Amino acid sequence: MIAILKSGTNAEQLENLTEWLKAQGLTVHISNGKFQTVVGLVGDTSKIDADLLSSLEIVESVTRVSEPFKSANRKFHPDDSVISVGDCKVGGGSFNFIAGPCSVESKEQVCGIAESIKASGATMLRGGAFKPRTSPYDFQGLKADGIEYLLEAKKITGLPIVTEIMNANHLSMFEAVDVIQVGARNMQNFELLKELGRTNKPILLKRGLANTLKELLMSAEYIMAGGNENVILCERGIRTFETYTRNTLDLSAVPMLKELTHLPVIVDPSHATGVSKLVKPMALAAAACGADGLMIEVHNNPRQALCDGAQSLTPEQFDDVASAVKRVLAALS
Amino acid sequence: MIAILKSGTNAEQLENLTEWLKAQGLTVHISNGKFQTVVGLVGDTSKIDADLLSSLEIVESVTRVSEPFKSANRKFHPDDSVISVGDCKVGGGSFNFIAGPCSVESKEQVCGIAESIKASGATMLRGGAFKPRTSPYDFQGLKADGIEYLLEAKKITGLPIVTEIMNANHLSMFEAVDVIQVGARNMQNFELLKELGRTNKPILLKRGLANTLKELLMSAEYIMAGGNENVILCERGIRTFETYTRNTLDLSAVPMLKELTHLPVIVDPSHATGVSKLVKPMALAAAACGADGLMIEVHNNPRQALCDGAQSLTPEQFDDVASAVKRVLAALS
Amino acid sequence: MIAILKSGTNAEQLENLTEWLKAQGLTVHISNGKFQTVVGLVGDTSKIDADLLSSLEIVESVTRVSEPFKSANRKFHPDDSVISVGDCKVGGGSFNFIAGPCSVESKEQVCGIAESIKASGATMLRGGAFKPRTSPYDFQGLKADGIEYLLEAKKITGLPIVTEIMNANHLSMFEAVDVIQVGARNMQNFELLKELGRTNKPILLKRGLANTLKELLMSAEYIMAGGNENVILCERGIRTFETYTRNTLDLSAVPMLKELTHLPVIVDPSHATGVSKLVKPMALAAAACGADGLMIEVHNNPRQALCDGAQSLTPEQFDDVASAVKRVLAALS
Amino acid sequence: MIAILKSGTNAEQLENLTEWLKAQGLTVHISNGKFQTVVGLVGDTSKIDADLLSSLEIVESVTRVSEPFKSANRKFHPDDSVISVGDCKVGGGSFNFIAGPCSVESKEQVCGIAESIKASGATMLRGGAFKPRTSPYDFQGLKADGIEYLLEAKKITGLPIVTEIMNANHLSMFEAVDVIQVGARNMQNFELLKELGRTNKPILLKRGLANTLKELLMSAEYIMAGGNENVILCERGIRTFETYTRNTLDLSAVPMLKELTHLPVIVDPSHATGVSKLVKPMALAAAACGADGLMIEVHNNPRQALCDGAQSLTPEQFDDVASAVKRVLAALS
Repeated sequence: MIAILKSGTNAEQLENLTEWLKAQGLTVHISNGKFQTVVGLVGDTSKIDADLLSSLEIVESVTRVSEPFKSANRKFHPDDSVISVGDCKVGGGSFNFIAGPCSVESKEQVCGIAESIKASGATMLRGGAFKPRTSPYDFQGLKADGIEYLLEAKKITGLPIVTEIMNANHLSMFEAVDVIQVGARNMQNFELLKELGRTNKPILLKRGLANTLKELLMSAEYIMAGGNENVILCERGIRTFETYTRNTLDLSAVPMLKELTHLPVIVDPSHATGVSKLVKPMALAAAACGADGLMIEVHNNPRQALCDGAQSLTPEQFDDVASAVKRVLAALS
Repeated sequence: MIAILKSGTNAEQLENLTEWLKAQGLTVHISNGKFQTVVGLVGDTSKIDADLLSSLEIVESVTRVSEPFKSANRKFHPDDSVISVGDCKVGGGSFNFIAGPCSVESKEQVCGIAESIKASGATMLRGGAFKPRTSPYDFQGLKADGIEYLLEAKKITGLPIVTEIMNANHLSMFEAVDVIQVGARNMQNFELLKELGRTNKPILLKRGLANTLKELLMSAEYIMAGGNENVILCERGIRTFETYTRNTLDLSAVPMLKELTHLPVIVDPSHATGVSKLVKPMALAAAACGADGLMIEVHNNPRQALCDGAQSLTPEQFDDVASAVKRVLAALS
Repeated sequence: MIAILKSGTNAEQLENLTEWLKAQGLTVHISNGKFQTVVGLVGDTSKIDADLLSSLEIVESVTRVSEPFKSANRKFHPDDSVISVGDCKVGGGSFNFIAGPCSVESKEQVCGIAESIKASGATMLRGGAFKPRTSPYDFQGLKADGIEYLLEAKKITGLPIVTEIMNANHLSMFEAVDVIQVGARNMQNFELLKELGRTNKPILLKRGLANTLKELLMSAEYIMAGGNENVILCERGIRTFETYTRNTLDLSAVPMLKELTHLPVIVDPSHATGVSKLVKPMALAAAACGADGLMIEVHNNPRQALCDGAQSLTPEQFDDVASAVKRVLAALS
Repeated sequence: MIAILKSGTNAEQLENLTEWLKAQGLTVHISNGKFQTVVGLVGDTSKIDADLLSSLEIVESVTRVSEPFKSANRKFHPDDSVISVGDCKVGGGSFNFIAGPCSVESKEQVCGIAESIKASGATMLRGGAFKPRTSPYDFQGLKADGIEYLLEAKKITGLPIVTEIMNANHLSMFEAVDVIQVGARNMQNFELLKELGRTNKPILLKRGLANTLKELLMSAEYIMAGGNENVILCERGIRTFETYTRNTLDLSAVPMLKELTHLPVIVDPSHATGVSKLVKPMALAAAACGADGLMIEVHNNPRQALCDGAQSLTPEQFDDVASAVKRVLAALS
């Protein structure tokens, strides 16, 4: 961490600052220039509040050299993390297909989809039981019943299940769930992240619509700081000015995150684009640039889906996507 | 609501669609063009899921003509809402100054600030007890003790208090709080909004960093749909590509929101800019464009603030801002 | 095109509007609802000024149903355009590798790079002779000399050359250039686009940093409206809030553009990311999602490049990228 | 300027870098930390290419401490620049109202508007003769005739005129124009900026839709580096995700720019919002936060404007805005 001091800082002020920084366990290097003084801080700066430091009257600006995330940082953990989900491995070279309906609608629906996606190579089943909807008047999900239907589908197919949590008070309902998803809107719901840090469940953490990769990693850090290191990151599109697609899928996030962290990174092309015919090309692109898996919406009858049908694939379309993705993976292996 | 059908839609498909829409209580108008058919829907379309409609195979696009928010909509409630907070009125022509420290640090700090801002014309005291921080390693607030110190300051000065909630499970601690704040990161924490809708406390709802005005109003709608109509909206800057300021304060949101809704709208220039010397000009601008109040960070010793000191004013600076704002308000009244 | 009228519009106003619209050659359909009247316009609406229409006192909003671009529109030209550049074909299933240095520095440099990239499968040589730089103090390119060195390299290797124009007055210097590039900052330099529309050179049109796909297509339309239909579109990243990468490469633009237009679409992963180690994964992703080619910066000594070295590949790295891209293309063919 | 070196940099590499930097006239300070070496550069770093420096193999990151703009920098020119336009002074405490139609349509139109806005206190007349339009099919302006009509209006009213240039080849037509405007889309048309730097006309430089304040100042620097220091900056809204307003007016740019530069800063609330009823509140806000003037669209019959009527005021509305703005200015003086 480097602080640049304002011109006119006197020796006493500099001395005071240095003492204060040393008291926090840091080594301090001073470099006096003609127009400014540069203060270099070495040690564990992840616990230094950069906002506080930059608010000091004599400080002009503060730059972090090392990243403020620690448990998620690849520098301190060079090997890929591999998260076990049932018999699946996420990360470390494995590729997972997580598929299923946006919303769980009935036992028949979810079991039917589960069987067909399994036949196409899906390794996990996803489905929304608790649904975050912009409008209070839109369908909010089947809740506990939805989780039950997912568990039925798991019983039949053996596929581990992934479903979203919106409220830490619901945790008891998620006991048999294999992967708990944190949605984009809750990426900085720190109270929820802390609670999930106290469990040992794999957590699928989606990037918020307007969150930087650093913030995504800091949110992973909240979970990991609580003791739960089973975090899977998910890129699902960011908010930009473009309107043809619902969001802008930021695929460069995939190799960038793989550089910064040892955690696995998957991609959700369905929510990112909001358009079913863009799902296949973006799924192929995600696989080509190094994602550890895909999360794809599949519905047996997209026209009647209770939500987000516009972005769902039919089971037949999913089968086509999965086989093309496998060809890309084989070409690059 | 208007749906444009794809060319090639046949009579039977159109008939099916029409039946389905009528079954939802809507009146349906069909306009057949040479290249496309336009379906106009009249009635209460706020409960129609536009995503679902646009996912139908024969539908090319869907446009909402009326807004999906109802309780917050000025069309159905032309007069300004006036929210009572202690002896203060928020909205309807009153102007409120809400001031205080980013974080509550001690009883002495918060009481000292409260007395000085009251002398400068502040009408409410704000202070953070539960702090949402990007990093799990940053200071998270004094929690219950922080609320207690705010209540001490209220006892001394009579100023109603405003403080942020991060977890619905903490609601019991907020019983004596006058206004409960929902922070930008929780604007779409729908579970929290629903719980607050069941209280009758005034809620200060901050716009999320990447949320549209429509989404802000839909979040207000979540609270109001639960029966609590005491919602105060707060513009606090949005995320853009500009880096000189922390966020971009979107002041056109103020007159735009006043057009769309009857709810009061206040502005937080401290968080929006992140730079203390921009607080005065942006406070003046907010007052000039019709805001119902300001929320300003004031600290007795910004250099030692435990967080966000860079954007705090001293009590003397706040006094100067408040008197200049009053001159602008007088000039425009 | 659909106009929704304000409630309260009377019969005479509606009659006046209808007359005015008919006078512009359109067929007008009126649909009277209880709360609003919907006016549907059928015919060639590409010449209707939507801003003007929506400014009329009785009009609440205007929605375009058909796109305002015509020559570039796939609806009116279902087959892929194939642009001939020397012996290369761009579009229609061919895949082109355009590679070369950010800036032309010397004859030796550019000839050396040209030979090595040709050996790796490059089909065209790129190099900047006129450089748009944010600062007037930064290197602005070798200008006419730069073009001459590119032509030398073409003589040796046979590779067609691509280079950027910044000023229509320079056109005479571009006579022997095979493809003229319009940079992101000039995407809406309409005067330049009009001049290029009067030539018959292939134009490589880069998407502006903050321009929508619709605006990109409208800029292509400027060139095509002048009679030059040889336009190649290029996605090169858009400006967002993310800071780890220089821009955010919007790969969903590739399949989306292929849907909207018959023009070929290539991707520049070098400028988009600004980081050389992201070039390979993003090049693979671009090929996987259907791009018609790649534009990649290659430098023989990236450490000494006069500009943008941070994003350049060495010839060896380019060879590796090209062969991996070919494997992906083969897997998907 | 500060460069942070990668860990593992050896003494010889450091020596080479130091020599190279010293050869460019800089003083170099080295600070060796345990994990990294920090190199501080003192001197005229405005001519150092930060991209090049950061591309060196041993460099991890580069941070500019001083700004890359020099002529526009307030540090080297603490007093406000005052630009003379006829008898008007722009900057240094004066406040200018620049008003007029989006497009010049006829001599009668522009003379009529000029007389009425003058009566309301306008100090300059604006009007578009060359119009940058997204679509090649939209009205492109009256060109030379438009300038002639503006000059007629100037003859009658004495108001200096402001009009936009799109092509340096048109400069001869602008000889009698008082202020030449560079539109948002041409803010980084560096060839045009260089030509304008060779004139001595006042230039009104509008911020690009997606350009940072630093880039705006670098574009001013292009003009000033050519010898023309008469630059007036104009904030006119940036592109964000919000859709209720056409752009997001970034008013914090006003005090931020006043801090960074000595050049005057005006605000265009008409283009920023695209909605006529937002013009008044945003004009008041701009005046309250320190703008040196306003640029407002006024049309005698907004319903029939050939472009952008939706955002124009009538002369009566302009009169109301101007008098309210004067009250705010008086209250703050």
